[in-house]
Amino acid sequence: MKFEVTVLGSSSATPIFNRNPTAQALNINERLYLIDCGEGTQQQMLRFDVKASRIDYIFISHLHGDHYLGLVGLLSSLHLNGRTKPLHIFCPAPLKDIIDLQFKYSETVIHFPIEYTFTDASKVVKLVENQDVTITSFPLDHRIPCTGFLFREKKRLRKLIKDKIERMNIPIEFYSKLKKGEDYTDSKGELYKNDELTIDSDRPRAYAYCSDTLYNESYFETIANADLLYHEATFLDNMRDRALETHHTTALQAGEVALKTKAEKLMIGHFSARYKTLNELLDESRSVFPETELAIEGKTFSI
Amino acid sequence: MKFEVTVLGSSSATPIFNRNPTAQALNINERLYLIDCGEGTQQQMLRFDVKASRIDYIFISHLHGDHYLGLVGLLSSLHLNGRTKPLHIFCPAPLKDIIDLQFKYSETVIHFPIEYTFTDASKVVKLVENQDVTITSFPLDHRIPCTGFLFREKKRLRKLIKDKIERMNIPIEFYSKLKKGEDYTDSKGELYKNDELTIDSDRPRAYAYCSDTLYNESYFETIANADLLYHEATFLDNMRDRALETHHTTALQAGEVALKTKAEKLMIGHFSARYKTLNELLDESRSVFPETELAIEGKTFSI
Repeated sequence: MKFEVTVLGSSSATPIFNRNPTAQALNINERLYLIDCGEGTQQQMLRFDVKASRIDYIFISHLHGDHYLGLVGLLSSLHLNGRTKPLHIFCPAPLKDIIDLQFKYSETVIHFPIEYTFTDASKVVKLVENQDVTITSFPLDHRIPCTGFLFREKKRLRKLIKDKIERMNIPIEFYSKLKKGEDYTDSKGELYKNDELTIDSDRPRAYAYCSDTLYNESYFETIANADLLYHEATFLDNMRDRALETHHTTALQAGEVALKTKAEKLMIGHFSARYKTLNELLDESRSVFPETELAIEGKTFSI
Repeated sequence: MKFEVTVLGSSSATPIFNRNPTAQALNINERLYLIDCGEGTQQQMLRFDVKASRIDYIFISHLHGDHYLGLVGLLSSLHLNGRTKPLHIFCPAPLKDIIDLQFKYSETVIHFPIEYTFTDASKVVKLVENQDVTITSFPLDHRIPCTGFLFREKKRLRKLIKDKIERMNIPIEFYSKLKKGEDYTDSKGELYKNDELTIDSDRPRAYAYCSDTLYNESYFETIANADLLYHEATFLDNMRDRALETHHTTALQAGEVALKTKAEKLMIGHFSARYKTLNELLDESRSVFPETELAIEGKTFSI
């Protein structure tokens, strides 16, 4: 099953020429989940061939503009392009007022249903459970209410021991039941336990998204053992005071989060415009957690 | 005196990869006037080296998102970059509510004064008169209240007849009075009428900006004799019905507006995303008004 994330924006609030504010498109089994939607996200989707029409879920971490100002334009365009299928938005409650006010004055009546679920930045909440994934929001520690999001694959199907079941001439129609864990009784009435015919599935993969936050161990348990951890790293560690003041994380701290939560891989982003190049941020995080990569616009990470 | 306009965006509402929604930066005597501010305008200013810090006035024609969705991000960035000098915004009244609501929830307290003047889409109104320019709003005919803007240079100073005044040894300190039309009396008490010493100034230049609108003669008188007319031309004339339905103009009609209002030059823009290339739109407008140019991102027109 496909499980990958494409970076659409990697900058913090002040714009810089070659970086866009935060947005990521997560592809899970060919369904798209948009995470944050900074100004210009639509253009980034066109640039990197991410089909906006295929987005079913949008997650907004908090109401600083660099995380949601592209949303009204995106909704308008989906409308103008004839979307009819519902869209689910998970966001802080006031975002609905902000969107409604703008559509009121533009006299726009969106032709597809928008279903809102308001996030709660005070506790861990399960937001979505579908056939592919369970999605959870969890509190981060920012200047205004802010949540991270955890995307965990549903338990995967067991794997058939191909040689054996072919040798036994088990009907193909029964394969899906075997994958789900059923035992098999052959035509002579002989029972085969499932674990004779299949092996355990791979461990469900997880992607943890930590938008703007102070380094704070309160969310470590929720994001533990992620296959990919996205964590903001706005500053170098020589600006730790500034990070504290603005409720952001340094690249060194982001590496520490990945190390302590036993992530497989770390992607850092939300870079301050003061850093024209990003090598120092990467090196700093790698000094603690070598498996660090940079969020770069257009880059896709397989999870 | 510098009087030029740089195109920052030329597309209509649906985004297209290589075009941005509407915005233009007008430079009059090294002061910047921003006209409309579609999503991504900040990035376009960075791309084309238009210094956002030098903007003193912003004009928003109407509240369709493709004309203002970049504004909140721009204001945030000016704030984050330490602006303290006032900014004047001329816009439909509800835009203030839209901006205030977003700053409320992002807990942003902007550190520079924003002075609002609300536009009135029912009549011609003088908005600004400073040493360089008189700026007027006028009604357009769109689906929601919408104004165009006319920027007319103040009457320019008279030109000195250099040879003559140097021969007469008129003190340099008196030159500025001569330029403003004063007569001159020399040390022997002899009077020289101003028109013996100066010649008439050039005609004040005018830039007329016609944002989204139906072709409608009601605004022709206001924009008459513009040195540069910007007019939307969303569709080719074979889509005139669609233009009528959506309150837009075709390229042919835009050419007719320029012809009938005796413009010197016409710039067309606000192109529908259905046109991947713009030659047909240009040719169609030129068939009526040969002095037509395309609004292309980054292009600067001297007025």
